[in-house]
Amino acid sequence: MQIAILLFERLTALDAVGPYEVFRSIPGADVRCVASVPGTFHTEHRGLALVAETPLSEVPNPDVIVVPGGYGEVDVRNDPTTIAWLLAAHETSTWTTSVCTGSLVLGAAGLLQSHRATSHWTALDVLREFGAEPTLERVVFDGKIVTAAGVSSGIDMALALTERLADRTTAETIQLAIEYDPQPPFDAGSPAKAPPAIVEHLRAQSRF
Amino acid sequence: MQIAILLFERLTALDAVGPYEVFRSIPGADVRCVASVPGTFHTEHRGLALVAETPLSEVPNPDVIVVPGGYGEVDVRNDPTTIAWLLAAHETSTWTTSVCTGSLVLGAAGLLQSHRATSHWTALDVLREFGAEPTLERVVFDGKIVTAAGVSSGIDMALALTERLADRTTAETIQLAIEYDPQPPFDAGSPAKAPPAIVEHLRAQSRF
Repeated sequence: MQIAILLFERLTALDAVGPYEVFRSIPGADVRCVASVPGTFHTEHRGLALVAETPLSEVPNPDVIVVPGGYGEVDVRNDPTTIAWLLAAHETSTWTTSVCTGSLVLGAAGLLQSHRATSHWTALDVLREFGAEPTLERVVFDGKIVTAAGVSSGIDMALALTERLADRTTAETIQLAIEYDPQPPFDAGSPAKAPPAIVEHLRAQSRF
Repeated sequence: MQIAILLFERLTALDAVGPYEVFRSIPGADVRCVASVPGTFHTEHRGLALVAETPLSEVPNPDVIVVPGGYGEVDVRNDPTTIAWLLAAHETSTWTTSVCTGSLVLGAAGLLQSHRATSHWTALDVLREFGAEPTLERVVFDGKIVTAAGVSSGIDMALALTERLADRTTAETIQLAIEYDPQPPFDAGSPAKAPPAIVEHLRAQSRF
């Protein structure tokens, strides 16, 4: 089973690394970070870069596609090589997934027409431009397309998908291996729960 | 404020990237992935590598030290350059932290003597060899040393620490920005919650 995680410049690291850390432990899974030109990709902020060692051309038919988000997704939307790969790979994939604003790449490629989908909460309205029906759910399965909400939601998405790719025992084994028993010190992780002033502050800063 | 995240070969990616994704959004924080020799560091599994662009020598006095875990931590324990940096940096740090088996590096450096500390649940007993008092808590503050449990716990640790480094509003703002409203599809994230057969399976596979 081949799982391709797309990397690009100015991605959000956790969008990619959350699913990676789950999928890499599925027995038999071959997880690869891929990019149109292999190399080093910096995150939105300084201090960290991720490496994709595999060119897109080497993984034309992954079973699972993962498209992370981040400020750089706008450039991916406009990159004909990556969009052509995505469209061709989606033809044969078992699951095509995104985390955070990675769903805008799926949308720009035309894959979300008439699909229920999610994204980072500040980007939900943008999904409508692509004919999708936005929803605030954390993980959205619609046909073979799976979209996850902002950043950290990729972990939940990957665990839910692992049950379908393998079985529940495998998913629970991985959950225990990464000790995913979340205990956030605050309850501010969604716009419905965070103090309204914080929601407004982030909405005002949003690029959407 | 300088925050140094140590990278090394065969690390667990999420141990490093969870805290990175939180700390990088603290206003004024300068977060750097550091290594004795800058370069590319592969994770325990194939398919992904992280880049540290800053040598330890360039960040001798970080305010916060983050030591992730992973199979490669045994080599770090035996690397005189990194241990010397850690000991010296700990002299002046505000907080010295670890995620997962990164606490074994702190222990090997002698920093956990008579400290309450945690680690990946399969590694808890190893902490005793370093004079520490192991605990199954997810995030353990003891003096200026903060240890987090397995892999994904680094996110919780970093949010709790952000409140102390900045304030609660900053921590909640970051929680909302990374949409950390966890909804694990299963409840198997700790040895107390997972099916006993899964706990035994992973314990039997453990290198400890």
